Amino acid sequence: MTRRNLPAAASLAALILATPPALAQSGTAADVAVDEPSTAHLPAIVLPYSNFASPEARALAGRLMHEPPFVFGDDVAKAREHYGRYNDDRLAEVRALYATREERQTLAGVPVDVVLPAEGVSQRNADRVLINVHGGAWMWGSGSGALVEAIPIAAVGRIKVVAVDYRLAPEHRYPAASEDVAAVYRELLKTHQPENIGLFGCSAGGVVVAQATAWFQTHDLPAPGAIGTFCGTGSGYGGDSVFLGQATTGGTAPPAVAAASIGIPNPYMEGVALDDPEAYPATDEAVIARFPPTLLLAGGRDFAASTLTTMHRRLAAVGVESDLYLFDGLWHAFFVWPDLPESKEAYGLIAAFFDRHLGKTAGATAQAPSRP
Amino acid sequence: MTRRNLPAAASLAALILATPPALAQSGTAADVAVDEPSTAHLPAIVLPYSNFASPEARALAGRLMHEPPFVFGDDVAKAREHYGRYNDDRLAEVRALYATREERQTLAGVPVDVVLPAEGVSQRNADRVLINVHGGAWMWGSGSGALVEAIPIAAVGRIKVVAVDYRLAPEHRYPAASEDVAAVYRELLKTHQPENIGLFGCSAGGVVVAQATAWFQTHDLPAPGAIGTFCGTGSGYGGDSVFLGQATTGGTAPPAVAAASIGIPNPYMEGVALDDPEAYPATDEAVIARFPPTLLLAGGRDFAASTLTTMHRRLAAVGVESDLYLFDGLWHAFFVWPDLPESKEAYGLIAAFFDRHLGKTAGATAQAPSRP
Repeated sequence: MTRRNLPAAASLAALILATPPALAQSGTAADVAVDEPSTAHLPAIVLPYSNFASPEARALAGRLMHEPPFVFGDDVAKAREHYGRYNDDRLAEVRALYATREERQTLAGVPVDVVLPAEGVSQRNADRVLINVHGGAWMWGSGSGALVEAIPIAAVGRIKVVAVDYRLAPEHRYPAASEDVAAVYRELLKTHQPENIGLFGCSAGGVVVAQATAWFQTHDLPAPGAIGTFCGTGSGYGGDSVFLGQATTGGTAPPAVAAASIGIPNPYMEGVALDDPEAYPATDEAVIARFPPTLLLAGGRDFAASTLTTMHRRLAAVGVESDLYLFDGLWHAFFVWPDLPESKEAYGLIAAFFDRHLGKTAGATAQAPSRP
Repeated sequence: MTRRNLPAAASLAALILATPPALAQSGTAADVAVDEPSTAHLPAIVLPYSNFASPEARALAGRLMHEPPFVFGDDVAKAREHYGRYNDDRLAEVRALYATREERQTLAGVPVDVVLPAEGVSQRNADRVLINVHGGAWMWGSGSGALVEAIPIAAVGRIKVVAVDYRLAPEHRYPAASEDVAAVYRELLKTHQPENIGLFGCSAGGVVVAQATAWFQTHDLPAPGAIGTFCGTGSGYGGDSVFLGQATTGGTAPPAVAAASIGIPNPYMEGVALDDPEAYPATDEAVIARFPPTLLLAGGRDFAASTLTTMHRRLAAVGVESDLYLFDGLWHAFFVWPDLPESKEAYGLIAAFFDRHLGKTAGATAQAPSRP
């Protein structure tokens, strides 16, 4: 895969915790014919904010679209500092709304943050636990980034959440995160039935949740009860949203050469074959056929939206129950902003999904494949 | 609502059986602030065809995007002739793939086409029936248009389909279609349990299915077992897809003033209040809370995509089970083209959805609301 040295996109997505900056800059020129008849040449468009989104989302989008872009460059330390501050700010907002207790622990040698609702775990969730895999482009998001994702779900769902502080790139590469999540999962299986364990993650974390679910299959681990892959899933990026997601959130569209199957252009995934089903589970029907019920959720302007709608169809085709929610007008990883009505709605959907699916024995929720 | 005299959009959508040509031309300037900070100003974009779509879809999109647009004007007779030929062509393609027997009948005074699979109705579907409500912007689609929608579902699902030849605009107005669908439904209830009856429709037909489901509630009729609203649903058009759907299928984006809640700009709906829950069911939580399980399905480039993703969230919020499928890169009402793999996939999803949900007694499938 060739890397192109284009100007960094000034986009909402790039401001958010988990956009791989390389996403807009990668592609393989050879396998895309841009001048073919199916290529659409869109004129310049004035796109008012979605009238289906909340006034709060409209106001925030209006602010974020005009903030100066963070230029990533290759300075990982600087990016970690930048996104650390960003996540600290979000965490303060989350804490103002949701009361939890957190404890730093080590499970099977992997550092984790255990998050418990201040109100206590509900009776129904006494034997259940959720594993959170944070976003952050595989390069940041530890600490406050993970808590921003874990706390609302622990509080709204009244359930214990174990946020995995997995090893990051570029120091570590695939499958480091799968290994760390699997180690924590194996440890939790000593005290929990697999059907009582769920996994969820956002952006890079959504990808890792899908990758780990495939990893379990070849590492002697049972399928969990349910998973949620948000703003990223077990498939390469691609489709219309790679172009439109950037452009509609104030950024520039990626070059047309990015239309090919681009995998996941991130240092963490560098050199991993696009047909490796543990890295890209959607490429193997037999692998995703063994997935538990799966929740897919993203903003309608998320660059990952097309990836999610496609994964949803692939899961349906192999008879796996999955739910897909897109929030019109919202952007990548929008629900790190806890004050948005859409974020509260997302927390509710996530909590309800796990409540509905955890605790069922494997196979009980499988559907007949959708293609008769 | 003011009508603006803009050039007709040269778009894939406009070539398809059911785009209200007025859609791109309506809006209320007063309630939209285009120059507010949340408005995105997209540059011209080169959008290659989605790499998640099939080669067949790519080839067809490449052809359709370059066909000269049909200019509707105000000549309904000419439009009916044009779309009649168009639907006749699709019907020939459908018949080459699916074997059914059709019979023209009159039920409760309403003309219908009864479609039976040549293989016979399956044992499981012996007591079940589906009502089809065809698309066509409320102005055309009778006859071959209805059969294009009904035949694949009857054949793939091995189920009886009754396609309602409801009264059309501009000769008739809302709620003529709701009345006709209700009359047929009431007649079928003499021989079928409500939980064994499903309704589905595409575009204008998708809207009518949702409207009829609300209509039943105030006209002494029980809820059906399941419904499918495709490429249109019980809500006004709006959101990002109104802009992006036109632009990405070779047309022009609607003017920015269309960002407000535009209802459904069509002669059929003229003068109907935007808060009438029998016309726009999504406006009333109590109405949609009594909806049966609902399937929502569209192309990712459909101008109705945002309407569907939003309806899906509203149904979840009131505890109604619904499934949403978006086909990346595909356009409005794409599954009238039966040779596309995506169309076959859609037929399978539709048949599987009704198979899963019909026959359950009311309430058995209700979920807890997703907002705890």
